[in-house]
Amino acid sequence: MSSRTPNVAVLGGGSWGTTVASICARNTRTVLWSRNAAAADEINTQHTNSRYLGDLPLTDTLRSTADIAEAVSDADVLVMGVPSQSFRSVLQEVAEHVRPWIPVVSLVKGLEQSSRMRMTDIVQAVMPGHPAGVLAGPNIAREVVQGFAAAATIAMPDHGTAQMLQPLFGTSRFRVYTTTDVVGVEVAGALKNVFAIATGIGDGLNAGDNTRAMVITRSLRELAKLGTAMGGQTETFAGLAGMGDLIATCTSPHSRNRRVGIGLAQGKTVEEVCTEMGQVAEGVKTSGVVVKLSAELGVDMPIANEMDAVLNNGQPVEEAYRGLLRQRPGHEVHGDAW
Amino acid sequence: MSSRTPNVAVLGGGSWGTTVASICARNTRTVLWSRNAAAADEINTQHTNSRYLGDLPLTDTLRSTADIAEAVSDADVLVMGVPSQSFRSVLQEVAEHVRPWIPVVSLVKGLEQSSRMRMTDIVQAVMPGHPAGVLAGPNIAREVVQGFAAAATIAMPDHGTAQMLQPLFGTSRFRVYTTTDVVGVEVAGALKNVFAIATGIGDGLNAGDNTRAMVITRSLRELAKLGTAMGGQTETFAGLAGMGDLIATCTSPHSRNRRVGIGLAQGKTVEEVCTEMGQVAEGVKTSGVVVKLSAELGVDMPIANEMDAVLNNGQPVEEAYRGLLRQRPGHEVHGDAW
Repeated sequence: MSSRTPNVAVLGGGSWGTTVASICARNTRTVLWSRNAAAADEINTQHTNSRYLGDLPLTDTLRSTADIAEAVSDADVLVMGVPSQSFRSVLQEVAEHVRPWIPVVSLVKGLEQSSRMRMTDIVQAVMPGHPAGVLAGPNIAREVVQGFAAAATIAMPDHGTAQMLQPLFGTSRFRVYTTTDVVGVEVAGALKNVFAIATGIGDGLNAGDNTRAMVITRSLRELAKLGTAMGGQTETFAGLAGMGDLIATCTSPHSRNRRVGIGLAQGKTVEEVCTEMGQVAEGVKTSGVVVKLSAELGVDMPIANEMDAVLNNGQPVEEAYRGLLRQRPGHEVHGDAW
Repeated sequence: MSSRTPNVAVLGGGSWGTTVASICARNTRTVLWSRNAAAADEINTQHTNSRYLGDLPLTDTLRSTADIAEAVSDADVLVMGVPSQSFRSVLQEVAEHVRPWIPVVSLVKGLEQSSRMRMTDIVQAVMPGHPAGVLAGPNIAREVVQGFAAAATIAMPDHGTAQMLQPLFGTSRFRVYTTTDVVGVEVAGALKNVFAIATGIGDGLNAGDNTRAMVITRSLRELAKLGTAMGGQTETFAGLAGMGDLIATCTSPHSRNRRVGIGLAQGKTVEEVCTEMGQVAEGVKTSGVVVKLSAELGVDMPIANEMDAVLNNGQPVEEAYRGLLRQRPGHEVHGDAW
């Protein structure tokens, strides 16, 4: 990089925001905004975020603050790690404090429920003139903090910007690739959870390794069909933010959405599973959004439709799988069936 | 289908040949050739193949014989389920007994060591004039026989032929899609085992779900780069024979190649692991072939190169992973690094 190394501000002290901030702090001056002053204080003094990451040590040069204006005032790069449903309001809160032109990188996997907008769309709406992109991949926060090898891709509208941001987010064990397909990377991350639930149902029925591989593969076809209709590029869905994240989400024992599917297959209701976990699984809400989007864009998505029927309209799990199996397969790439 | 339902002959009474024959026997008149007369007799009288599939019941109308000329004499479709290294000699043995024009479908995942030829290339060489194709996907035989949902793709040079063969191989729980990309499907199946070893190494080092998803995803990129250089189509590698089979092979506890990787990571030699399993893992030999092919075609394949160095040139496992991590990532789709 020819100019001064950029300062980074990360907004959102959850597990992934904290993890990314901890990586950035190894590479450059980094501030993490946490809404919780005690958490910010713990990061500054103990170098841990015990609520989200237990006693795993964070980079000791990472600074944290609960003052959002202070966090962003000196930032050359703004990183958004807040939940999708508060993304817009946090952005509105900081907009007047942010320096002009600086790139905004979203870490968020989801769509705004009310508008069905992508996070980078919201950046364009709230802070026009800032290049908006996304960092995504198969990234379970705890494993990245522990230093296990992992990879992600950073998508920015301009490849030069992506290349300049890459050294801020990467380490020798956290490999950050670059791309310009912002839409593809963002859509892949937002929609994958629906399919993790479908995979979980198969696992809950003890359907075996073939079935899991089939459901993941055909899910990726559906995801790619909708994603390209929304403007993403085909190759992106075969990459880290698409296939990579889907594999991790559909096979990890830690995946909340997969656990919802397993619970459903065991005869529990969505509410019962979520109560047991103490958390909502995003795929439950996303399935309804996917069905609406696919209808608008004229894309056939039989797996997502069955998931929506199960999750939001009380269809029994067995019916969903039977319905899918009744469909006759066609051409693998150009056919209509799932 | 407008004409008479075709008779099927399956050559090779191993686990997958038997499974496919058992499926075909539900749909049409089917004969399975087994070199072992006692095994053929067991299939005819007990409807089991205890050596390969325990006491799982086969379709009771499946007939088996140890007489290869008898097996093929009335066949309208020839299905090849013998090991890759005896594929050519079996084909030479039956050629004079086979009816003209009939399609030949390979079930075999591998290349001929001496010539590096694909199985359908061998069909063209030994029996010119017969359309040659392949059936492949994430298909662990035992799970398919047990009736768990699974899927595969049948590739034939002509799509009409693929569509006519589809009803012979499919059932409501074994979904057979169609494609014309014979080369892509065949190459994907032949090369995937190298990458299953790479994944196994990561698992053996307890590297976690992120690492596994990263290695599978970047392996598929390498596989697709070589496969398209060999004449396959990009989409095929994101399908059942590519990504689907790779996921099953890289995540199943039953995968021999993955177990080789796990053993290597635990400090065992290739020989020790194979002795323990009582079987050779195909990826060990394939890695050398892949390295030669990629050099000839000018395709960079860092993961395959490191696997070849470990498997065939005594490089320590830790060095291989460290070597990979030293490389800086580039553009996710167009970059050179792994």
